[in-house]
Amino acid sequence: MMEHPENSEEYKGLTVNAGIEQPSIVNPYLKLRKKPRRKEYSVAEFVEGIVKGNVTVLSQAVTMVESLKPEHQAIAQEVIEKCLPYSGNSMRIGISGVPGAGKSTSIDVFGLHVLEKGGKLAVLAIDPSSERTKGSILGDKTRMEKLSVHPKAFIRPSPSAGSLGGVARKTRETIILCEAAGFDKIFVETVGVGQSETAVHSMVDFFLLIQLAGTGDELQGIKRGIMEMADGIVINKADGNNIEKAKLAASHFRNALHLFPTPDSGWTPKVFTYSGFYGLGIKEIWDMIDEYMAFVKKNGYFDYRRNEQAKYWMYETINEHLRDSFYNNPTIETMLAAKEQAVLNGSQTSFVAAKHLLDTYFQLLK
Amino acid sequence: MMEHPENSEEYKGLTVNAGIEQPSIVNPYLKLRKKPRRKEYSVAEFVEGIVKGNVTVLSQAVTMVESLKPEHQAIAQEVIEKCLPYSGNSMRIGISGVPGAGKSTSIDVFGLHVLEKGGKLAVLAIDPSSERTKGSILGDKTRMEKLSVHPKAFIRPSPSAGSLGGVARKTRETIILCEAAGFDKIFVETVGVGQSETAVHSMVDFFLLIQLAGTGDELQGIKRGIMEMADGIVINKADGNNIEKAKLAASHFRNALHLFPTPDSGWTPKVFTYSGFYGLGIKEIWDMIDEYMAFVKKNGYFDYRRNEQAKYWMYETINEHLRDSFYNNPTIETMLAAKEQAVLNGSQTSFVAAKHLLDTYFQLLK
Repeated sequence: MMEHPENSEEYKGLTVNAGIEQPSIVNPYLKLRKKPRRKEYSVAEFVEGIVKGNVTVLSQAVTMVESLKPEHQAIAQEVIEKCLPYSGNSMRIGISGVPGAGKSTSIDVFGLHVLEKGGKLAVLAIDPSSERTKGSILGDKTRMEKLSVHPKAFIRPSPSAGSLGGVARKTRETIILCEAAGFDKIFVETVGVGQSETAVHSMVDFFLLIQLAGTGDELQGIKRGIMEMADGIVINKADGNNIEKAKLAASHFRNALHLFPTPDSGWTPKVFTYSGFYGLGIKEIWDMIDEYMAFVKKNGYFDYRRNEQAKYWMYETINEHLRDSFYNNPTIETMLAAKEQAVLNGSQTSFVAAKHLLDTYFQLLK
Repeated sequence: MMEHPENSEEYKGLTVNAGIEQPSIVNPYLKLRKKPRRKEYSVAEFVEGIVKGNVTVLSQAVTMVESLKPEHQAIAQEVIEKCLPYSGNSMRIGISGVPGAGKSTSIDVFGLHVLEKGGKLAVLAIDPSSERTKGSILGDKTRMEKLSVHPKAFIRPSPSAGSLGGVARKTRETIILCEAAGFDKIFVETVGVGQSETAVHSMVDFFLLIQLAGTGDELQGIKRGIMEMADGIVINKADGNNIEKAKLAASHFRNALHLFPTPDSGWTPKVFTYSGFYGLGIKEIWDMIDEYMAFVKKNGYFDYRRNEQAKYWMYETINEHLRDSFYNNPTIETMLAAKEQAVLNGSQTSFVAAKHLLDTYFQLLK
């Protein structure tokens, strides 16, 4: 039996950062054997290529965004800055759902449906590496069978390394590059099992939550606050024997949504059933998103939310750096364990322990 | 017509920090005319008085905790530190509900019910001043008619000034002092309209959410994530014509709770109806809390949660100070408005703007 490519040395060489993600019209396994010589672009070449819609250049630029090397980061920031004026003209849609909800299949049919109307679609992902294996990244992409060979689609998995905050920032910056390259629909996918939904919600215009019908127990895969973030909830696998169960689940979700206050958008979240596998109910979902976009553009919430998001990311970046600077300080790291222990055994209050640590930190910065 | 005491100069002199909150067996309006000469206690006298259960000393110590003066804070921290070994032996119960849900009346009857079994009860509150007027603080206290004259009860409203973080920290420290003074039941009250629930949740063992029955619209007064924090939800005003509506609301909440995963405690939140005004269903609520306490003490979650809370407050204090130090820096304050504008008009990415601000800040600290 041949070794599975995911376990081979050669596979490990192909990271998400390899920069040859697009076009992926070749068999993904064949790609593994190629070691492409990468062209080094200048900032001007990057920007020109992106604005012309060249996906090879776009893909390389995203690799710069994802790179941990400071020289790559410097190039990336300049490219993003120059692409900013060309960005913003897209529908940004977050898509979340627990593993097994059929996200990839759904994105495949959703994507084909919108591409039939014209335009270009980019599918990005936010998932810190700890939450999924490299195998499943490859798996996801091959599961988007039709989109992955579609000339108007650009699929880019989540960077394979980094904190959620870092990955989220990179995805947000990748959105800017994709928009500058003419992609007018952006899907940002995430697994519905963690904090990543908040990050996705803070960079999209519409947040779609995919759920499964099932027994009461199976419905429980929703985490804190995720339901309240949803602008639409869709129940997948409403086909065959499952239709009644799906309808019942939909009605449960509608009742539950009534318990929450109307979101700031003024939009009442809708609940639909559909079947990704059989392609049923897809049109209704996209009509809802269109209706939402018209609604929030008219009442001003669309611009308001985009502005709030831009500010949010500035403050989020600041707060993350402030925390990193403190907690990654070697002296603080050493003290922290002892202080935590003092707090736990009741010899010091949380506040006094915090004050000692802070005094030490600010002394060290001088 | 006489001027209402709340509007008079004399009233303004009685702030929450006046330190004469207990015992309140006198007519609260009479108290307003007294200008007590406050005894200045030493740290040792504070600790001795508190441990002996002297509520006058306790009340004075809480005033030190709430004071903004550094010399008072220094005393307060020493007193708290010395009281720590005597603290921890209480049931800490958070009680939240929207304005109008009947919190004060409910706390009055809940409190009397538990005091009948012995022990001592402290009722504290977390509400940043912006969320309520001084009038309503006085109002709340007088609405707790029976508790406010009960010799085993200590009622302390929220400090009248400060950020939510600051107020929450002070409430948490007041819990320690109350426990050292022998109060074995602590209620922490909050209005269900903001972030204060998260703060309360992070300092109590059991979180009780008071709701009202009514039309679908009236049920909407729940904010993000609050329902998921509740260990129990109780529907007030289940009396007279309202009983059926209350039962229906309870069943809606039970259904909605099924959509969420089981909390870390392993405890499935319960939903009851009751009438605070007529004192109906009170026993059932307290039996639930007793049952919960036995459950989480047996499975280890009680200690786990208390430890997590102690750590949470250390980290929360650190993070709050780090942010304050940055955002209250005068140079940063000036730059921030310009950077926000640059981000909003699209001339700079959120990340680059953040980086400029951070570089400036760390340079200034040197």
